[in-house]
Amino acid sequence: MTELDTDRKEVSISEFFDKNKQMLGFDSPQKALFMTVKEAVDNSLDACADAGILPEISVKIEEAGKEKFRVEIMDNGPGIVRSEVANSFGKMLYGSRFFKERQTRGQQGLGISAAILYAQKTTGFPTEIITKVEKDMTAFHFVLDIDIKKNSPHTISITPEIWDVKSGLKITLVLKGKYVSGKQSVEEYIRESAVANPHTTFHLILPDKSLEIVRSVNEPPQIPIAVKPHPHGVELGELISILREYESETIEEILEDKFSRVTKQTARSIVEKSKLKDKKITKLTRDEFEELLRTIRETDFMEPKKDCLSPIGDEPLFKSAMNSFKEYHPAYFSQAVVRGPFVFSGHPFLVEAIAIYGGDLPKEDPIKILRFANRVPLLYQSGSCAITRAISSLNWNQYGFSQPVKDQVPIGPLIVAVHVASTKIPFTSEAKEAIATVPEIMEALDVLLKGVARQIKTMRKKEAYKGQVEEKFALIEQILPQIAEKSSKILGLEPPDITPIISKVMGVVAFREIGGELYAENYTEKLQNFKVVLKGEGTFTESVKNLKPFQKVKLNFTKEIVSSTEIYVDLPEPVLLGAYTLPKVFSDE
Amino acid sequence: MTELDTDRKEVSISEFFDKNKQMLGFDSPQKALFMTVKEAVDNSLDACADAGILPEISVKIEEAGKEKFRVEIMDNGPGIVRSEVANSFGKMLYGSRFFKERQTRGQQGLGISAAILYAQKTTGFPTEIITKVEKDMTAFHFVLDIDIKKNSPHTISITPEIWDVKSGLKITLVLKGKYVSGKQSVEEYIRESAVANPHTTFHLILPDKSLEIVRSVNEPPQIPIAVKPHPHGVELGELISILREYESETIEEILEDKFSRVTKQTARSIVEKSKLKDKKITKLTRDEFEELLRTIRETDFMEPKKDCLSPIGDEPLFKSAMNSFKEYHPAYFSQAVVRGPFVFSGHPFLVEAIAIYGGDLPKEDPIKILRFANRVPLLYQSGSCAITRAISSLNWNQYGFSQPVKDQVPIGPLIVAVHVASTKIPFTSEAKEAIATVPEIMEALDVLLKGVARQIKTMRKKEAYKGQVEEKFALIEQILPQIAEKSSKILGLEPPDITPIISKVMGVVAFREIGGELYAENYTEKLQNFKVVLKGEGTFTESVKNLKPFQKVKLNFTKEIVSSTEIYVDLPEPVLLGAYTLPKVFSDE
Repeated sequence: MTELDTDRKEVSISEFFDKNKQMLGFDSPQKALFMTVKEAVDNSLDACADAGILPEISVKIEEAGKEKFRVEIMDNGPGIVRSEVANSFGKMLYGSRFFKERQTRGQQGLGISAAILYAQKTTGFPTEIITKVEKDMTAFHFVLDIDIKKNSPHTISITPEIWDVKSGLKITLVLKGKYVSGKQSVEEYIRESAVANPHTTFHLILPDKSLEIVRSVNEPPQIPIAVKPHPHGVELGELISILREYESETIEEILEDKFSRVTKQTARSIVEKSKLKDKKITKLTRDEFEELLRTIRETDFMEPKKDCLSPIGDEPLFKSAMNSFKEYHPAYFSQAVVRGPFVFSGHPFLVEAIAIYGGDLPKEDPIKILRFANRVPLLYQSGSCAITRAISSLNWNQYGFSQPVKDQVPIGPLIVAVHVASTKIPFTSEAKEAIATVPEIMEALDVLLKGVARQIKTMRKKEAYKGQVEEKFALIEQILPQIAEKSSKILGLEPPDITPIISKVMGVVAFREIGGELYAENYTEKLQNFKVVLKGEGTFTESVKNLKPFQKVKLNFTKEIVSSTEIYVDLPEPVLLGAYTLPKVFSDE
Repeated sequence: MTELDTDRKEVSISEFFDKNKQMLGFDSPQKALFMTVKEAVDNSLDACADAGILPEISVKIEEAGKEKFRVEIMDNGPGIVRSEVANSFGKMLYGSRFFKERQTRGQQGLGISAAILYAQKTTGFPTEIITKVEKDMTAFHFVLDIDIKKNSPHTISITPEIWDVKSGLKITLVLKGKYVSGKQSVEEYIRESAVANPHTTFHLILPDKSLEIVRSVNEPPQIPIAVKPHPHGVELGELISILREYESETIEEILEDKFSRVTKQTARSIVEKSKLKDKKITKLTRDEFEELLRTIRETDFMEPKKDCLSPIGDEPLFKSAMNSFKEYHPAYFSQAVVRGPFVFSGHPFLVEAIAIYGGDLPKEDPIKILRFANRVPLLYQSGSCAITRAISSLNWNQYGFSQPVKDQVPIGPLIVAVHVASTKIPFTSEAKEAIATVPEIMEALDVLLKGVARQIKTMRKKEAYKGQVEEKFALIEQILPQIAEKSSKILGLEPPDITPIISKVMGVVAFREIGGELYAENYTEKLQNFKVVLKGEGTFTESVKNLKPFQKVKLNFTKEIVSSTEIYVDLPEPVLLGAYTLPKVFSDE
């Protein structure tokens, strides 16, 4: 019993995480190196996003001894003012993004401090930070580590320094690490970051290679704007404490002020329905609070505003996927699909996805899943992530993929990239490696994924159908004329006009490559007008006007373009053979 | 840029977890109900373990409205003294188990406070705690919740109360929840807890059923004793801070005092080898610290002591598995295997496992994995747990199981129960649902699992071999005598003595059930002495002395026993047919 009664104490959050590094993702030297880069890069991207700056980020990793690495991350972000540097880096649970209802990468005020803590614990080295804000003449160079027992920064030195940039931040850490390439590496992380952040340029200097990824989009994304919580997410205890906090106001005023999408009128009607008109908050009973919550839940509100979120967007995601996966020479890309915003526990979220099929993708391996949360690639803890679970729970056999075991990842030459964007990603741990399987998110993902899976299924069916193009052309060009000729000879007649038969067999506008040239042929009974778009490294367009029935036209694309691009036409599918229907995304170009 | 410079703040740990409930496992109403029971029961088991009490724990769940449940957990533990109750329940990161190097279920000082926080946020109800310690005349009844912004208890009332027990604790919460039965339910959690804690009696009153699980072991486990950290786990930064903290002492003294397994002599030799004799700690350079660490790493120390750990143990685990899985009528149990202690980052750990095969277990489903960490069942986040990953990474085809996809869980009628026990389980999150894939743990699990998988493979082979028993008996009893008779008739001779041929064919002691009776027959050429043990619901033993070659003996077990038990004999395998070699575990009984 004595065990229980003595020796109790409180520990600081830094002490707690010092002893539980794995919760922040620092499980092993390899993971620690990865996490350090990730936390710093995510911070840089967030800082640039807030300032509307197109990010240019350099990551440099050098060996600095046995199992020891020097890691330097530099950005062109807005920098941090001198007075805030020490706390921002040297204190856990300190930051500017807590509980703001808008989409950001960092939310916790933990990540970079965890890296600093890990560095000092494993190598004894403090961290160096150089930062310049636009309004200051010089940059400031900080050397600091963390006083773990107090959870506060321990600043060793601050010196002014000339740094010839408008603004920016550079952080250098020396830590125990293990450098790997390939799966779950720093390089993979940066490559996938580029998929989700096509507006960013990355410079990478790694121990075994250097590379540069140049932005493919030249506009920074819109800055997400904070919103108030949506009333559908509030729980009873929370509602009570919000009302009590502002008890000098009326219930109506609080509902209107503290929640989004609650108009004066709705607030009034809620209070009336709950029979709480003119009641003082201090006098409310539990039953009355419960009645108020019930009324709120039964009330329809507008969906949350989208402008607190920053989706990649259907067109940039499609472009980014085309750009990033061209090495596989995939046979098809699904269209990028964006769904939402929805709400869970009052937090708006949306989901987007794209699927890439075939080409050189391995046929016998589990499909490749790219997971993103608020534009950050998730490379670990795949098995417990909502995205993987949603994918595994589909019945893939019905989309033409092999799924040997129910509820496990299917097999086949497919990449599925999925992005969940929210004002609050419900991560399963501080390491932010997996999204919790919150019912509302699972449901949204399920519908989203069925959408892209169905697209791929349709495209594969279309491919089989495209195989019939050749058969049909063989029919109209060789067999039908022969039959016509033979039968007329037997009957001693002139060969008949087989045009009506042909247009009945075909009934479409057909596209064919003959010797590298692209031809459009009208096998319908009316005039056809359409736009042909070839999409690959670039986009090439040609319009065809008034193509008469049974007329054929050669299109003016070069052989190189025809061979390396996909053919899209703005005609509906039954009137089209040998090309794809133009996705909505392109139709305004 | 303004975004970056203004509005930074620090939040309390309670506020942080209030907004990140899923990190503590409170993702959904269903999970919340589960976690609440789990945290309270784990606390009860820990408290009883510390006090050497055989635990008797009652769990009662009642519906208290729509999606609202009243949960009551009562134990016969030592209770908590009045002055510590409020902080122990109402303050996060407060507790008695932080950083103690010994095996306990709770380590964080978070779990039960999280349940209280969740209850107050979802229903507005405070938590009630009644506790009595042995030395007090009365119990005390607390009503409290948590002041989230301050991370401190908000005590509503304390009243003395008569509770007629020696000591104990009862906690009652009202929370938003969803009650389920079956997979990942409270019932499953309690059933698996009983597997890992066979010394505990559970009373369960659930909304849809009541049940009682009575302890099968009547001794409490040994109380684990705290040890100092093992020197092989220390990192440079940590070593520097320990040395600096005690800088008035010599390096030798600190090494001997602050670490386990470092003798005066080893400490002296480390200091001499590092050329640091008589050096003052305040004067040491980074290179000298590094040299000291290098020497420590190159020094052999004894493995950590086991008494900080509380494994289930091979015999209790075997018994517990037999008891818990009898409903499947399994064909085989592997022996329970315990391996360790090993060390990761200075923390001792050991691993133990048992496998159960066949019977009514489903043949077409993934195998069932039971995961335990410090005797606590892990029911969620299976995919990212070291145990599941270690199982998936075996090549199961080579053990006779189907594994359609590499690195995924195999298919077959098998249960594998695995326990990791450590002074510090590296959980991936505060919800303590999955063990991080720490390299040392992965390696230990790999060897452990290969061991039990091989046992099952061997048993299946033996089963095939046992099928040959019937064949061999048919040979000696029917075919050989017929051949002998026929050949002698043809030759007009007396039938020959075929005994030498039979003993050559058989060469074993054979065990056969005939009409429910068990017979032992000696088909070897020498006298045999052995002990026969029948194991099932109970254990039944009989010794056979001086069984002569070609002699047969009927054993005195009843028909009921023979039919419902496994037959074990203390003879080596080649001298044995139709029974199992007696496992080491039983041989002392």
